[in-house]
Amino acid sequence: MILDPKKLEFKNQIFVILGVSGCGKSTIGRLLSGRTGLPFHDADEYHPKSNVDKMSKGLPLDDADREPWLEKLSGLLKQWHEEGGAILACSALKEKYREILGENTKNIHWVYLKGSYELILDRMQSRKGHFMRPAMLQSQFDALEEPDYGLTIDIEQAPEQIAEQIINNLSMEKKSVFGVYGLGVMGRSLALNIADKGFILSVYNRAEGGEEQIVSDFMRENDDRPNIRGFTDLGAFVRSLEQPRKILLMIKAGPVVDIVMKQLLPLLSKGDVLIDGGNSHYTDTTRRCEQASEKGIGFVGAGISGGEQGARTGPSIMPGGELEDYAKVAEVLEAIAAKDRSGDPCCRYMGPDGSGHFVKMVHNGIEYVEMQLLAELYGLLRSDRSNEEIARLFESWNHGTQQSYLLGITQSILRKREGDGYLLDLVLDKAGNKGTGSWSSKAAFDLGVPNTLMSASVFERYLSSFKDIRVELASRFPRRGDRGGALPEDAVLREAYAFARMINHHQGFELLRAASEQYQWDLDFQRIARVWSEGCIIKSALMNRLETLFAEQGDLLSLAEVTEELKEQEEAVRVLLSSALNRRVALSCFGAALNFWVNMTTESLPANLIQAQRDFFGAHTYERTDDPGGGPHHTQWG
Amino acid sequence: MILDPKKLEFKNQIFVILGVSGCGKSTIGRLLSGRTGLPFHDADEYHPKSNVDKMSKGLPLDDADREPWLEKLSGLLKQWHEEGGAILACSALKEKYREILGENTKNIHWVYLKGSYELILDRMQSRKGHFMRPAMLQSQFDALEEPDYGLTIDIEQAPEQIAEQIINNLSMEKKSVFGVYGLGVMGRSLALNIADKGFILSVYNRAEGGEEQIVSDFMRENDDRPNIRGFTDLGAFVRSLEQPRKILLMIKAGPVVDIVMKQLLPLLSKGDVLIDGGNSHYTDTTRRCEQASEKGIGFVGAGISGGEQGARTGPSIMPGGELEDYAKVAEVLEAIAAKDRSGDPCCRYMGPDGSGHFVKMVHNGIEYVEMQLLAELYGLLRSDRSNEEIARLFESWNHGTQQSYLLGITQSILRKREGDGYLLDLVLDKAGNKGTGSWSSKAAFDLGVPNTLMSASVFERYLSSFKDIRVELASRFPRRGDRGGALPEDAVLREAYAFARMINHHQGFELLRAASEQYQWDLDFQRIARVWSEGCIIKSALMNRLETLFAEQGDLLSLAEVTEELKEQEEAVRVLLSSALNRRVALSCFGAALNFWVNMTTESLPANLIQAQRDFFGAHTYERTDDPGGGPHHTQWG
Repeated sequence: MILDPKKLEFKNQIFVILGVSGCGKSTIGRLLSGRTGLPFHDADEYHPKSNVDKMSKGLPLDDADREPWLEKLSGLLKQWHEEGGAILACSALKEKYREILGENTKNIHWVYLKGSYELILDRMQSRKGHFMRPAMLQSQFDALEEPDYGLTIDIEQAPEQIAEQIINNLSMEKKSVFGVYGLGVMGRSLALNIADKGFILSVYNRAEGGEEQIVSDFMRENDDRPNIRGFTDLGAFVRSLEQPRKILLMIKAGPVVDIVMKQLLPLLSKGDVLIDGGNSHYTDTTRRCEQASEKGIGFVGAGISGGEQGARTGPSIMPGGELEDYAKVAEVLEAIAAKDRSGDPCCRYMGPDGSGHFVKMVHNGIEYVEMQLLAELYGLLRSDRSNEEIARLFESWNHGTQQSYLLGITQSILRKREGDGYLLDLVLDKAGNKGTGSWSSKAAFDLGVPNTLMSASVFERYLSSFKDIRVELASRFPRRGDRGGALPEDAVLREAYAFARMINHHQGFELLRAASEQYQWDLDFQRIARVWSEGCIIKSALMNRLETLFAEQGDLLSLAEVTEELKEQEEAVRVLLSSALNRRVALSCFGAALNFWVNMTTESLPANLIQAQRDFFGAHTYERTDDPGGGPHHTQWG
Repeated sequence: MILDPKKLEFKNQIFVILGVSGCGKSTIGRLLSGRTGLPFHDADEYHPKSNVDKMSKGLPLDDADREPWLEKLSGLLKQWHEEGGAILACSALKEKYREILGENTKNIHWVYLKGSYELILDRMQSRKGHFMRPAMLQSQFDALEEPDYGLTIDIEQAPEQIAEQIINNLSMEKKSVFGVYGLGVMGRSLALNIADKGFILSVYNRAEGGEEQIVSDFMRENDDRPNIRGFTDLGAFVRSLEQPRKILLMIKAGPVVDIVMKQLLPLLSKGDVLIDGGNSHYTDTTRRCEQASEKGIGFVGAGISGGEQGARTGPSIMPGGELEDYAKVAEVLEAIAAKDRSGDPCCRYMGPDGSGHFVKMVHNGIEYVEMQLLAELYGLLRSDRSNEEIARLFESWNHGTQQSYLLGITQSILRKREGDGYLLDLVLDKAGNKGTGSWSSKAAFDLGVPNTLMSASVFERYLSSFKDIRVELASRFPRRGDRGGALPEDAVLREAYAFARMINHHQGFELLRAASEQYQWDLDFQRIARVWSEGCIIKSALMNRLETLFAEQGDLLSLAEVTEELKEQEEAVRVLLSSALNRRVALSCFGAALNFWVNMTTESLPANLIQAQRDFFGAHTYERTDDPGGGPHHTQWG
């Protein structure tokens, strides 16, 4: 069955058309059925035979007669709702009848067809074959309690006009709380997550360019979820949302976002909010915040981490933009986010402009390093140990202070078997990347921050891609492990790993600090650590610890607790690097971590020579240690 | 003396106003003097007394009478020219008189005031107090040999019109070959270099915002150079240039270039060429090439290296843009450039768009690493050796294959004394940077190239800026040298240095290769090595060797000569790094060099784990070693 996109808007909707006999309930109901694709039912067809007989004899039904009938209808309405919606014509004259009808189904669209006694009498007298006698009409008017809710429609209009009015009114009345634009892997998962939380939501995807079936497939797969409404018509999608509208864009980062904004902005009203949930570059997001703001539209750039699974069950969300805009979308985003150890959502307002996407970008940069550190350890150990042995080592670390999501999945990966061997051994050693790692590294250069581990991790991925050259050169050079030498003890490996992770997180947060100062974002490190403590790829026990550590002012290296620990671990890194040096294995990230720490704890670096060289050939001047704050000085060195 | 900017255009110009007596030479000469600021002289005032007496008696002068007088005037013209220019009124009726006048001075502007016998007779009869009698007029007309060069002007016009015509005609006639816009340190040096090569050039600088005196000071300092003309009026500057105009912009890279282009483009004509000689970002240059091209103007982005001294005596120049535009400016740029070992100019066409600025950017990136390598060696050695000892070591390397400009200046720096100590010891260890290093690093990320040494060098400069934190942390941690261990032998240091330099140059050229492929620039590595072999900061014996090596197809690591050398040197780097590890000194660049080499010669990197992790949490898929070219594969790992 191919659903008519136009009709997806009415999925799971229940209409009850009410009014006295002869007001046109069946006519309007059937018209509406044609317009909406919902099946039409006439309540009279569900009367028990006793009632039909009574009415045929011209005897009016009493409430005792009606009760089993109304109960039955009430059950049917529930069933029809779950089956995709329906339209019921039913006089439902009294409030208590309507209460029975509605007791199993929320959000019934009540449509009261209102007409004068004279008009209806006139119409009834022209009808044939109907078992109700005109004489009963007065008793109906006597019983009628007009509803003061739902939709009241004057039946003097033509039936087509009435049907149109009901549909338009539905669009006004029955709005979704939230919209999701784009039903890719992440968009679908987030939509289901939102639906799980009970929000009525609209989802949209274009139905062209190979994506014709996306929405209809999604709606069919999820036809047990009445609170999801699918659209392939952008106008209908937008109209289906309550104001201020809240639309989450789950589309490919880059120019596509600008194209979609261009389509959407004219359809929106002041105060509406767009949320970009993709991995957009933060400078683009800052620009888009400004562009949307010029039209009175809010724009929230929200980094979302956790992959498909996280999106479905609870991601970590990093929203940035104007606080008042975030306030409008907070309820939904915080409801779907992972919960931290205190039960608070891993979704907190980060700051203005593209700050949310910046934080997400740095998250990914930290992730690159966390992955590379494990890969470097694996690379060193695998010449001497089996995958299972390495998995066991990692498993022994994966509790207490070093517990982490990535350590956990790495164990699973190491242990994954295929046939007689390990699947990992068959994976090609060319690592891909999707840009956020290099963006982090580039941001570090823009901000003048020595972000050495992220760069090293990204470069190692690039290096891995030169597979052919490596194979060719390797054939002419001593292979890894040839030089031998004992591997460091497990405890040394663990200390070195802890050391490098701390430096990695320090550098990551210092990159955030530099951006926060540069762009005046006033980022809250404790809040960020909290948002990263669950739902995302870098969730770990360390992140919980950082949340506590960031209660103190200043960076991690200003905390004696941290520096004393690093001081103690330093020797382990040295042992590890010595071993790697002897075994001809490059541990770029571990090396960068130690170099960073050594430099940061060295009073005098040889940068004085560089300054002198710059002054020699370029007259760039220098400062003097014996003239603090003085200068600049210049010398004819040659 | 403040020079009138309007009059700078006429500096050192010599005008000779000629024609029969009574044609208005003095009147026009004096008007012209007011307009140009040049002093006016009347030749008659320089007659020897014998001639004056003869004329007073109504006796005509013969050529013998005139000869000493003309010889004297000829000497005066030379003197006036050197003193800043002058206007001389002199009948100079015969060609041989004019030959004498011009024998000491090139480029005299001859202005012949032409009128009929009747008109002049009429004018003379209305003059009083003049010692020449009207009767002599006919003899003048008899003697007159009208010049068929210079400017002939009809005296029937008003004197103001005549003066205007002379000035306009000068602007048409007397054009500069080249223009330099911006007289900062580099602009001044390049202008003098161009002037040295004999080109007539115009220089411009704005006379506002604190730069009021720039042009007048420059012109005064260089008033012995008749081929430089200074302007503070942009229109006059542009008008002073022969077409197609060639203007070298020596201004601050960034938005200023766009502002200046906006001012200049409307004043230029199709076919003119702008050269941006600053350190502009290559993407800006590519954009500006397009913008200028839309108006029919050529735009050459030329990287210029060598600092102030290089600019003055022979820089290395890396021009990019359309070849036909470069062809117009090649004569001047190649004349002023340094000369390579074959005597050819270190200025060659690089390629289209911003390729010239890209090449210059990579030059600077390589320079960062070359400086950092020396700084790291110095940093390791200085705990055990004096500056003089380190200088002596570097000196021992600075010939043959490791000779380089930077090694040379580093020796000078190490030896520079102040009082009883070394000046270097008083230079603060905070290294600055002007962006091209970080641009190179960012370009590497954009192009997916593992440019590890440049990044490390830039990060080391950033790190050096955290002086306060370093001092604070250093007070709590063991100081460099505390751990001891012998320093590597000098030969080991030299080998490690050679190794790291080769890796540095390999990475730099591979960055060029990636850009060349990405942007289809078709860069010629041999040509680039040649341009970098003299005049620039990274000139070295190695660069000459690279020029030879790049005669072969492929990258340096594809040459057995290079890889065998690296293989032999590898152990020296390992010894160096071991020593640094034990002595608690970070050798980030040397470490990155070894890691790069080890990775490039390793068949299987641990990147398979990273691909598996990515597939685990993000379904990013992977390739399999047992399915080359197949896939992508995806696994439920957990």
